[in-house]
Formats: sequence, structure tokens, C-alpha cells
Amino acid sequence: MEPGDAARPGPGRVVRALRPRLLLLPLLPLLLGRGLRAGAAASSSGAAAEDSSAMEELATEKEAEESHRQDSVSLLTFILLLTLTILTIWLFKHRRVRFLHETGLAMIYGLIVGVILRYGTPATSGRDKSLSCTQEDRAFSTLLVNVSGKFFEYTLKGEISPGKINSVEQNDMLRKVTFDPEVFFNILLPPIIFHAGYSLKKRHFFRNLGSILAYAFLGTAVSCFIIGNLMYGVVKLMKIVGQLSDKFYYTDCLFFGAIISATDPVTVLAIFNELHADVDLYALLFGESVLNDAVAIVLSSSIVAYQPAGLNTHAFDAAAFFKSVGIFLGIFSGSFTMGAVTGVVTALVTKFTKLHCFPLLETALFFLMSWSTFLLAEACGFTGVVAVLFCGITQAHYTYNNLSVESRSRTKQLFEVLHFLAENFIFSYMGLALFTFQKHVFSPIFIIGAFVAIFLGRAAHIYPLSFFLNLGRRHKIGWNFQHMMMFSGLRGAMAFALAIRDTASYARQMMFTTTLLIVFFTVWIIGGGTTPMLSWLNIRVGVDPDQDPPPNNDSFQVLQGDGPDSAGGNRTKQESAWIFRLWYSFDHNYLKPILTHSGPPLTTTLPAWCGLLARCLTSPQVYDNQEPLREEDSDFILTEGDLTLTYGDSTVTANGSSGSHTASTSLEGRRTKSSSEEVLERDLGMGDQKVSSRGTRLVFPMGDNA
Amino acid sequence: MEPGDAARPGPGRVVRALRPRLLLLPLLPLLLGRGLRAGAAASSSGAAAEDSSAMEELATEKEAEESHRQDSVSLLTFILLLTLTILTIWLFKHRRVRFLHETGLAMIYGLIVGVILRYGTPATSGRDKSLSCTQEDRAFSTLLVNVSGKFFEYTLKGEISPGKINSVEQNDMLRKVTFDPEVFFNILLPPIIFHAGYSLKKRHFFRNLGSILAYAFLGTAVSCFIIGNLMYGVVKLMKIVGQLSDKFYYTDCLFFGAIISATDPVTVLAIFNELHADVDLYALLFGESVLNDAVAIVLSSSIVAYQPAGLNTHAFDAAAFFKSVGIFLGIFSGSFTMGAVTGVVTALVTKFTKLHCFPLLETALFFLMSWSTFLLAEACGFTGVVAVLFCGITQAHYTYNNLSVESRSRTKQLFEVLHFLAENFIFSYMGLALFTFQKHVFSPIFIIGAFVAIFLGRAAHIYPLSFFLNLGRRHKIGWNFQHMMMFSGLRGAMAFALAIRDTASYARQMMFTTTLLIVFFTVWIIGGGTTPMLSWLNIRVGVDPDQDPPPNNDSFQVLQGDGPDSAGGNRTKQESAWIFRLWYSFDHNYLKPILTHSGPPLTTTLPAWCGLLARCLTSPQVYDNQEPLREEDSDFILTEGDLTLTYGDSTVTANGSSGSHTASTSLEGRRTKSSSEEVLERDLGMGDQKVSSRGTRLVFPMGDNA
Repeated sequence: MEPGDAARPGPGRVVRALRPRLLLLPLLPLLLGRGLRAGAAASSSGAAAEDSSAMEELATEKEAEESHRQDSVSLLTFILLLTLTILTIWLFKHRRVRFLHETGLAMIYGLIVGVILRYGTPATSGRDKSLSCTQEDRAFSTLLVNVSGKFFEYTLKGEISPGKINSVEQNDMLRKVTFDPEVFFNILLPPIIFHAGYSLKKRHFFRNLGSILAYAFLGTAVSCFIIGNLMYGVVKLMKIVGQLSDKFYYTDCLFFGAIISATDPVTVLAIFNELHADVDLYALLFGESVLNDAVAIVLSSSIVAYQPAGLNTHAFDAAAFFKSVGIFLGIFSGSFTMGAVTGVVTALVTKFTKLHCFPLLETALFFLMSWSTFLLAEACGFTGVVAVLFCGITQAHYTYNNLSVESRSRTKQLFEVLHFLAENFIFSYMGLALFTFQKHVFSPIFIIGAFVAIFLGRAAHIYPLSFFLNLGRRHKIGWNFQHMMMFSGLRGAMAFALAIRDTASYARQMMFTTTLLIVFFTVWIIGGGTTPMLSWLNIRVGVDPDQDPPPNNDSFQVLQGDGPDSAGGNRTKQESAWIFRLWYSFDHNYLKPILTHSGPPLTTTLPAWCGLLARCLTSPQVYDNQEPLREEDSDFILTEGDLTLTYGDSTVTANGSSGSHTASTSLEGRRTKSSSEEVLERDLGMGDQKVSSRGTRLVFPMGDNA
Repeated sequence: MEPGDAARPGPGRVVRALRPRLLLLPLLPLLLGRGLRAGAAASSSGAAAEDSSAMEELATEKEAEESHRQDSVSLLTFILLLTLTILTIWLFKHRRVRFLHETGLAMIYGLIVGVILRYGTPATSGRDKSLSCTQEDRAFSTLLVNVSGKFFEYTLKGEISPGKINSVEQNDMLRKVTFDPEVFFNILLPPIIFHAGYSLKKRHFFRNLGSILAYAFLGTAVSCFIIGNLMYGVVKLMKIVGQLSDKFYYTDCLFFGAIISATDPVTVLAIFNELHADVDLYALLFGESVLNDAVAIVLSSSIVAYQPAGLNTHAFDAAAFFKSVGIFLGIFSGSFTMGAVTGVVTALVTKFTKLHCFPLLETALFFLMSWSTFLLAEACGFTGVVAVLFCGITQAHYTYNNLSVESRSRTKQLFEVLHFLAENFIFSYMGLALFTFQKHVFSPIFIIGAFVAIFLGRAAHIYPLSFFLNLGRRHKIGWNFQHMMMFSGLRGAMAFALAIRDTASYARQMMFTTTLLIVFFTVWIIGGGTTPMLSWLNIRVGVDPDQDPPPNNDSFQVLQGDGPDSAGGNRTKQESAWIFRLWYSFDHNYLKPILTHSGPPLTTTLPAWCGLLARCLTSPQVYDNQEPLREEDSDFILTEGDLTLTYGDSTVTANGSSGSHTASTSLEGRRTKSSSEEVLERDLGMGDQKVSSRGTRLVFPMGDNA
């Protein structure tokens, strides 16, 4: 706002005209278009109006066109940034440069462009106008404004803190490159998260499921509370030394703990993938990071929902606390159910229609159903991103098997491209935001405190949990693995998206700035240090994902169940095996045959009185070509090499404690057994001739059952 | 607005709160998010405020959440609609139903949902509030509103006609399903148009290029002016019988002529593709419809830009007219250049980097570059959609040859899916809009007049043009083809997108309603009548696209250059052959070798003094494996079968009037000739042994040159 304009409106009543600030990546053309439309509307109606108003509208039109052009230019900036990043990534891959990952690169380019935009463009735009308006009531989502007899509709963009009105947003270009934060959360994250779920290497994931769940749920909660409390101490310290200029509550600290606990090891995992580092470590890190993103989202919204009764809204209140815990559980299970249900529906639709004759239709349906998960969850008040994650896992587990060969590659490639673009966009934007975001609150004490807190939080999360998990694991998590997990806790897109979501208050702005710096530091330093760290910690690289580590490898403390602490460990071990086995046999005997074309015929697994239903639900392919289908009953969608397992004649009876399973298999005897259990063993990567040579497996401890 | 609220604000000063109306398909999550964010902001800042204001904000938050939920639900409606459409399409394809195309189906489902939303949901929402505000100046793109000390930012949505304020938008759900019109133009059309350009079957397209250009440019202009003038007569008639209640200018009529001249034979082409109908007819229809979309866009914006000097803004003004023509030519050539340039840049980048080792990077780059065309054109004031079309053609012609095998299928599939989704979405939305759009102006006279006018306009476009084209064509366009082209002039997505772009004035609303009905009629009746019409007109189906029609086929009046009107015809014929040959040899000798890995080495085609440059630009592959590369020098990206042409030893010398071509080929003699001219002949589908058996070819009349 210019000084001359500021004087015009009456005191206390300021309505200022800004140019459209929100710029949305995939929306862009829309917003670009809005300018055009305004121009077209102005020109068409302007002709009918008087000459004077026509001139005025012509000016509006020109301005709209100018704004439209600026929108296009700022989006072009991002596209050129991404193009540059892609070319440099290629160069790095070509020359096998590993000290800087592509995401780090995207951030550097973003930083450079941010500096140029910040210091290289003229600082103010002279077109801001002010006008007076009074609105005594609360804010509405839409306003209708009467301007010289014409009505214009305005929509609410958000609240602006009063102190900022005169000082911020002087620069058109800076404003243009500032996107609506929800774009990150609602447009860019879903494809990333869906892809993560869809491309999960399920064998290694499920083999380590217990540990992954422990790290993701317990670990994130622990980390959140430790960081939150440490940061509360830091904030108290800041208050004492007078560094805090506005309110900063305990719930804010906890919120910071939640958003910063979402680890995002894209960099590490990309390097792991490239170097073929240990698959179990990979599964642990990947599984943890994917699930803890979900946990962090739900945790942060539960903390926001924590509203103690009474006036003292930031004191501890047990009722409110348990309500928050309830909200956490409700949102999480709701989102999980939502995702699983849409996945199952898609599987049923693709199974029972012959849609696979038309891959285009199939792919479109798959895409729409996966997307509807997001909307369905949001419509029901759950979290779309979390639902999309579980939808991805379900789609990969069931629907993927029903798709035509063409659709399999199409869907994989489609989401791969979306994921790649979204991820690089987020990281470029992060680089850009350091200079173009106009409400940074840099507080050295808070930043240093945060670095210490995340280090301690990560340590308090990894080491104790690993100790307890090792009590129950056959396949111990070695010290070098623990150190690597500790080291790999870098923060990325999710922490950023959660932090940028709300930057209205002083506390949130400080958190955003700190999060941005933590992301920079971890992606550059830790991402670059991954390769040296791996060799320093003696973690094997170049591992064939289907080969298990030799039993006497340093990274596994092999305990054959007769060690000193095997008494307590055995129980956990057996229990986890039992739960897993129960789920596995249920999945293999009922869910897979119902939802896909593979697995044993339902007529053999269901009780006899369900015969008709079983015949309806079983696809004819199961009877026709049971042998070839067994080959396709793949749990691994990314590496084709995963399927090259050889398995001999199954002589080990793996009949477990699942009664229904035993009962049903006895109906057809040998035939079912060979079909269901060979698959079972293959899925878990264990033919009998292999078991003898390895002996160190997490699942199905043979000796205990046979 | 409720009656009680309406009384509150002062006279003439009405500011009304509406809930967010715009709902954007790919943006959806963003908008969904906006509610959430508002909620989060309210809850975080509400805690700090007084209790009373906290309660108020809680109410706002609840409302925002409710609005967010409704957004999700309305988007879910669309997704379920699309899902249903996909499943029914499958059923139709499965059962080989052809009387109703998928787009017609999408419209029917849209209609049904529209009826339900219109009559099945409660009519008013009680939450609309009004408040008073004065704004004497013109409208700004953004407002800052002070509400009890807090500042809220609002963005301009558009103008609302004063008469509608009280009567429209009573129904929340109807409002929710009304998208911002620019979504269609800027988000849904670009992938459709890009796909059209990218999947053009170039051989048949280029063979009929002259006719296609004539139909698209001259034809659309003729049709636009005839329809415009006829409609002006209809409007005059309406004024006489008192059916016209607001202004309707001559320029409005011309605008209507422009938007309704954009033919969109998706339905016909889908059926043609399925039945393998005659390829030349297909090329004519497809080429015409793709290019006339571009012409119609540019034409309509030129008409909008037609601003005569002086007060009488709707009289004819020669200067303004020529200015409009200049604008037309400027925008069209600018958009064309923009598209071609980005295509060429992408080709160069993909050629000179070894990006094809990383298909994901390559696909991402391809996608970003194609998208940047749109933005670049918009930033320069050209038309993004038109630029994207030519970008698609260039990408298919050059870049496609440089891509890795994986990227070729990836890019094709990516754009195919986007195209499919966008197209079906537009058609569903059209069905929905008939009942949910709240500003329909049904005028029976105008509608009947429009049907008559488009019929006459199409006739005046096809028959005379075909007559003149037949004078110059060897391969005549038969009567049955002309009738089929006349019949196939149905209107679709482009007419709709142009019509919905601006519905502010009375005239535009009437046009929109009429366009909608024309689209319905043509898609259902004409789309359904395609198969009967084809057999009634004796047009061959089941044609192998590589086979040319037998010379004595009914659909071609074969004139071997000795007919009565061959004197005038020959000149045109030779000229077109000469231009085409010039372009072809330039493309083949210089552009293809520079931009792709195929074609003859530049060292042989460029003069000797450019040796160094030629060596730099020629890719080593050209020397290494010239033989296999020739096979890949494919112009046809859709049907792999197109490449199965057999061609014998080239003994026919096709050296034409292009001097540079002849000069350059003489440098290396036989080698170049065999490489460049065999390809030339193969591209045009003529080995010598074929020429003798057919004798009826448009291009390269052998007898005239040899």
C-alpha cells in the first residue's frame, strides 16, 4: 500500500486491494484463466456501458491481463526450475555423483531462484489501491460487493495479521510464487503417499511388520512428546532471555513435535535403492517413514483438536487429553478403513467385470477409485492422505493382480511420474520459500534447540525401541542398523507440508522457519553423508533383494531361541508369528480368492454349506489354470527379480494354530496344501532346502510348530 | 438470502455472504483443503482470543468444515459419475453396442444426476448472511476486510448481474457442482488437444493437408459468418415478436457463429476407429476438427477484441475489422510458433542428452516441456490451447523418435489417460449443467434458428469447398464423403468450453443454453446415426489403414489428369505437390537429422563448408546403424501396423522441382538417394510396384515430373 492511499480510508476501516496472490500448481491454468475471463467479461460488458466506465474497465482488463501474464511467468519459473533439475539429475546419474541427491539439488535451484526473485526484482508495485469498507459481523466465506451498481463476488482467502498489512506483499512477483499451502497437502502429497503405498515391497515389509508398526506408532509418539517437552523448555528459556515476542503455548510445542517427527528418508532410500543396500534395513526405514507420515498427520490434527474445557485453554486437562487420544484412534482407524474399503471395492470391480480387455478404461477406473478414497475420507472427516496410503497398499496387494499386463505398467508409471513431479516440485518450492516466504521468524535459540531436540528425540525413539524389539526378534536389529536408522531420520516433504499449512500465528511462523532449516540441513548433510555412513557402519551394499544375509553376518546377532533372554522373547516372537500366520492364512484362503483371480478356489477353503456362494465368488481362472496363476500370485510389484525364487517340493508342514485354516485345507487334502502352502512358503521366501541353510528367519519358527 | 436478512443492509449497498461456489476438478483437494485450513486457523487463533469470539470462531470453523465436506461430496458425485460411465462403457463395448457413444452416455448420466440435484435436494440454505459495505471505486482483484479487528483477505470471483442476486444460488449443492468455467478451458481442454496433436496419424494427415487446411480455415470462417448473419436475422425477428428482453448485438451473433463452428467429432471418430472406416475420410474429419478448434478459439477472441472506435461500438468499422483480422493472424501464428519451438527444444534436449537411459526423467521432462508451452503462450498473450496442439504435432514428429521405448509408451499412455478422463468429465458436466446451471435463457426461436443456421453453415462450408478442392485433387472427395462430412459436423467439448467461458450477459446466457442443446442433439442423434449413415452412404469399413482404396472404388472419382477440368486442376495439384515436396525434403534432409537420431547424416546433406557443424549435430547413431534406423524413422505413432509396409528397390526417380534437394543428394549419389528417397517413398506408402497397381495418388504425380 502506498502512503497516499493509506491516508484515504477512515480510521479502523481498511480494505485494501491486492493482486491475486495464490498460485496453484496444477490449478495454475485455472487461475491464469481467471484473469482472461475477467478481461473478456469486462470487454463484453464494457461495450454496453458509458464511455467513462468503459475506459475504467479497460484499465481493469489491462490489469487483469497483466496479472494473468505474471501468473504464467511465475509458473513458468517453476517449470523451468523442474526442467533444470531434471537435466542436472540426469547429469548426476550419468556421472554417478552421489554426494547430493536430486531433492537436495531441487532445493539448491529453488534457493537460487528465490534469491533472484527476492533481490533481483523491483520491490513495490504501484497498482495497489485502497478503499473503505465496514464489516462488523464475523468473516464470511464469500462477499458480494456493490461497485457503482455492479456486483462482484469475492471469496475468503484467509486471515492476515494486522501488523503485516503495511509491511508485507510489496513485491508482485514474490506474491505470485507463494502458493496456497493447502496445495501441498491436498494436491502434491497424495500422489507421493499413494505411490509409496503402491510400490511397497511387501515381502520385506510384512516380514518386519511388527517392528515397523512399533517404530511408526510408539516411536513417533515418543519422539513427539520428547521434542515437544524439550522445545517447551527452550521456549521458557527464550521468554527468560527476552527473545520471545509473542505467545507460544505448550500445545504449540507438542504440535511442533508432531510435525517434525515425520521422517522422510527419500534421499536415503533413493541411495539405498541405487546401492542395493540391505533389504531389511530398507524395509524398516521405508515402512517407518511411510507410516509415521500418517501418524504425524493424525497426531498433529489431534493436538490441534485438544481443547481443554474452561478459560485456561492451554493447561493440561485429562478429559481433553483422552478425547484427543480418541480422536487420534478414530481418525486413524477411519482413514485406514476408508482406504482399505475402496481398495477392496476396486479389486472386486476389476475382478468381476472383464474390464481388463480395455486397459484404458481399467487404468482410468483405478485412478478414479484411488482418488475417490481421498475425497471419501475428507467427506467423512477423516484424513485423505492417510486413507490414500492404505488404499495404495490394498490396491497393490489385491487389485494389482486383477489388472491386465498393460494396466499394471500403466498404473505404476502413471503414479511414478506424478510422484516424481510432485516430490521435486515440493523440494524446489522449499528452496524458494526460504527467500520468498514473507513471514519468517528466525530465532537462533529456537533453531538450535530444535536441532538438539530432534537429535535427542530420534535417539530416544530408536535405541530403546530397538532394544525391546530385539527381545522379540529372531532377526536382531544390529547396532550398525540402529545407528543407520538414527542417522537416517531426515525430514522432508511431509514436515514441510504440515508446517506450511498454518502460518497465521507467531508461533507457527517460527516453527515453519525452523522446519525449513531442519529440512535443508538434513537433506543436504545427511542425504550427502549416506554413502560414507553405510560403508563406515559396515552395512552391506549390492545385495540381491531375494537373498537373505548369511547367518554369521556382523549385522545380525543370531539368537537361536536358546540365548539368555529367550524366555521373554519367545512369547513375543510366537505371538507375532501367530498373529501374522492368522492374517496370512485368512488373506490367502479367503481374501485373495474373493478379491483376485489367484489363490486356492473358495470351494475348497470355505465350509461345504457355502458352496454356491463360493462357486459364484471364485473366478473360473482359478480352476482352469491354477498352475500358471500360482506364478503370478505375486506380492512384489516393483522388482521383477523378486519372482525368481526357486522352491522345491514342500515337505515341511506349516500347519499352524489357525484352526479354520487346518479345517479347510483338510477338505481337499494334498491338492490344497500344495497350492496354498507352497505359495505361502514362496511368499515368505522359504523352501525347505533354504531353511536348513539359513536358520535365521523372523517368521514361522519351524521348530516351535512342527 | 433470507427475507429477514435482505431487509438489514442499507439501500443500494448489499454485500452478501455466499459459500464458496467454485469447485475445481483437479483443484478440488485444494479447495477442500481451504475449509480445513480456515478451520485450523480458527481453532489455533481462537484459543488465544476471548471466549465470546472463540465461540463465534468455532461456529465459523464448523461452517468451514461443513462446506469442506460438501465440496468433497460434490466431487465424489463427479467421480462416481465417471466410474459409472466407465463401467457402462465397458458393458457397451463388451456387447458391441454402437447406437450410443460413451460421450453420449456420460451426458445421460450427468443429466440424471443433474435432475436429482435440482429437484431432489432441499432448495435453500439458511446460513447465508448479509452485511453492508460500500465500495465506490472500481472492483479490485483482492479485498482486505476488517472484521472486529481481524483482517481477512478476499479474492474477486467475478461479476454477478444485479437481478440474479436474490433469485439465484439458493441451493448449496447446486452451487457446489458449478465449476469455474475456466477449468474447462485451461485444465480439461489442454490434455485433450495435446493428445489429438500427439496421436495424429501423420501419413494420412499430411497427404490431405491442403484440404484439411482449407476446411479448417476457410470453412470455419465461412461457417462463422453465415451462422452469425443468419442468427442476426433471427435476433431481429425475436425483437419484432418481442421475445428479446435484453441487448443482443451483431458481434454477439458473430461470436456465436465462431463458438458453434468448432466441430468435435469425437463420437464419429471413435466409431470410425472401431469400424476401421476409410482412412482418408478419417484424416479429413479428424484434421479438420482438430484445426478448426484452434481456429474457433482464435476467431472468437478476435471477435471479442473487435472494438470499433467512437461511441457506436457495434457498427461495422473497417479499421477495427482489419485489426481483428490482424489479431487473428498474430495470435494464430504466434501460438503456432510457440508450440513448434517448444517441441523443437524438447527434441534437441532429448537428442543431445542421454536422458533416454532414465525413462522416468525423460517422461517428466516431456510432460513439463509440453505443459510449459501452454504457459509460455499464455504469458506471451497467445492462446495456450492452440500452442499445445502444435506442440503435440511437433513432439510426435521429432521428439517421439528420440525417446526410449519405455518413454514412448509412457507418454502415449499418460496423455491417453488424461485425455480420456478430461473428455468424459466434460461430457458428464454438460449433462449436469442442463439442470444445475442457474442462468439458462431458453428461447425457442433462437434455438430453432441456431439449428437451421448450423445446418446451412455446415452445408455452405462443405459442398462449395469440396467442389473447389476437387478441382485440384487427384484423389477426389466423392459425394458420399461430402455427405458424411456434412453429417459429421457435431459439436462437443470445445463449443461448450467456449460458451461457458463467459455467461455474464443475457446474450451469452442464451448462447450457452443453445450451445448445450446443440451439443446434446448432435452427440446423441448424429453420434448414434453414424453407423447406419456409413452403410447408407456405401463408405467402406474394415479398411486396413495401410491399404489404399482400389482405383475403381465408388468413393473416388478417378481423374487421371486428362478430364475436362484438368487444366486448372493441374496447376493447383503441381503447386501443392511442389510445396509439400519442398517441405518434405527440407524436413527429411535437415530438420530430422538435426532434431532426431534418424535421417541421412547432415554431413551428406549440408554443403561441405558446414562440415564441422554438421558433424556436431549429427548423432553418431546415424552413421553406426543407418539401416536399422531407417526402419524406425516412423511417422506413425499410433498403429504399429503402419510400419509393415514392404517396399522394393527404388527405381523410380522422384527428384522434383526442389533444387536444394537435388543438389544435396548429388553430393553422395546413390547412398543418399537410397536412404532419403526410399524413406520418402515409404512414408508416402508407394513402392514402385504399388504405384503401378494403384495409379490414383494425391501426391507426387509421377508422370508430370519424371
